[in-house]
Amino acid sequence: MFKETHSRSIAKTLSWRLWATLTTIALVFAFTGQAGIAFTVGGLEVILKMLLYFVHERVWDKIRFGKQEIQPMVLWFTGLSGSGKSTISKQVFEKLNDLGLKVEHLDGDSIRHIFPSTGFTREARDEHIKRVGYLASRLERHGVFVIASFVSPYREARDFVRGLCKNFVEIHISTPLDECERRDVKGLYARARKGEIHNFTGIDDPYEPPENPELQINTVDVSVDEAVRSVMDYVKKAMNHG
Amino acid sequence: MFKETHSRSIAKTLSWRLWATLTTIALVFAFTGQAGIAFTVGGLEVILKMLLYFVHERVWDKIRFGKQEIQPMVLWFTGLSGSGKSTISKQVFEKLNDLGLKVEHLDGDSIRHIFPSTGFTREARDEHIKRVGYLASRLERHGVFVIASFVSPYREARDFVRGLCKNFVEIHISTPLDECERRDVKGLYARARKGEIHNFTGIDDPYEPPENPELQINTVDVSVDEAVRSVMDYVKKAMNHG
Repeated sequence: MFKETHSRSIAKTLSWRLWATLTTIALVFAFTGQAGIAFTVGGLEVILKMLLYFVHERVWDKIRFGKQEIQPMVLWFTGLSGSGKSTISKQVFEKLNDLGLKVEHLDGDSIRHIFPSTGFTREARDEHIKRVGYLASRLERHGVFVIASFVSPYREARDFVRGLCKNFVEIHISTPLDECERRDVKGLYARARKGEIHNFTGIDDPYEPPENPELQINTVDVSVDEAVRSVMDYVKKAMNHG
Repeated sequence: MFKETHSRSIAKTLSWRLWATLTTIALVFAFTGQAGIAFTVGGLEVILKMLLYFVHERVWDKIRFGKQEIQPMVLWFTGLSGSGKSTISKQVFEKLNDLGLKVEHLDGDSIRHIFPSTGFTREARDEHIKRVGYLASRLERHGVFVIASFVSPYREARDFVRGLCKNFVEIHISTPLDECERRDVKGLYARARKGEIHNFTGIDDPYEPPENPELQINTVDVSVDEAVRSVMDYVKKAMNHG
């Protein structure tokens, strides 16, 4: 919810007056041939119409007609640990932010940091994803783009979130398990193989790939820049058709 | 995030032109004494300046200078079951909505309906309140007022939420237990007394009243209308000082 400040109305008044009064002076001169009258009319007009314009701006700030909210989307990145979700989604977040849009980045790791008691059983994961999805859907409803980056391995929970949102865009970062395990950025695959952590997606817990994702990106074939570009292309196309 | 539609710019253009051209005609007539010239200048001005004004509006729609976001608040209603939280908060929600503000109503009962597996143990309640509070804080950050209505019996969880939000307004609906039990709108106190439900706040689970709530309302002394008015007074005062 934005309101226009008085300084905005003043700046706009001055900006308008410059162009409008030059037009008036030119018109009066064209019809009277008298520069004196043209500039006197122009001078008086400047004063009178600046006041009028400022009041007009303030009144229109109260009128809601024709103010249209941009329809946001929920961009849901799903995929194995180490697939590249966080890297790609962070850059998409920054690009949307640079466009002046309202955008929130919800990242699995950061949110688990705030709610450390969230477990990794199917039940705990489902509850977690559904609650995050509810949060995403409320933000979307109020005009905020949401970039969500979660392993979110279960199809049912993802579909629950899809049902809550208006414009749900499922982006499957489909980098295969062997590549994710080879990268093993956080050393988690090694620990899961040793049995030090349990319910680890891909090792001793399943990943159910999306059946009809809006986008699918395999970072073995595609660079981070290319991945970000294809997501942004999708978003821009959808915004123009929405 | 709002953008101005073309129809808004057109309506504003017509509205401005009416007042502006009447002024021009009056000015030219005052200086030339010739109605013919005054109306010719006025007529040409109408066409030229309408185009100029429309373009000016479209350019300014891209300029962010002076657009100020209204600072929203999180109005957190806490109190026993049957204290009047839902009734009062629903009316506050509607009043804020009528003011044209962005506002979300988060109600304990409705949210438990979406997440039916949420329990009533201290641990489950704390997790629930903290997650709802996180949701409230994200909405607030993006310019949305939040009306939250939850028993939220534990001080620590409420203070956690206060820490997440920028403008947290704790409203203690302090209707005493005996009055809530006498009303027993949902028949829950009777069932709790019979031992049919457990961990029921006020019966076999504690309620920790806020120590420094921004507002405290006891519905034994105060009607719903008066309660709503005092909340709205608080909000309006805070908005003018914010």
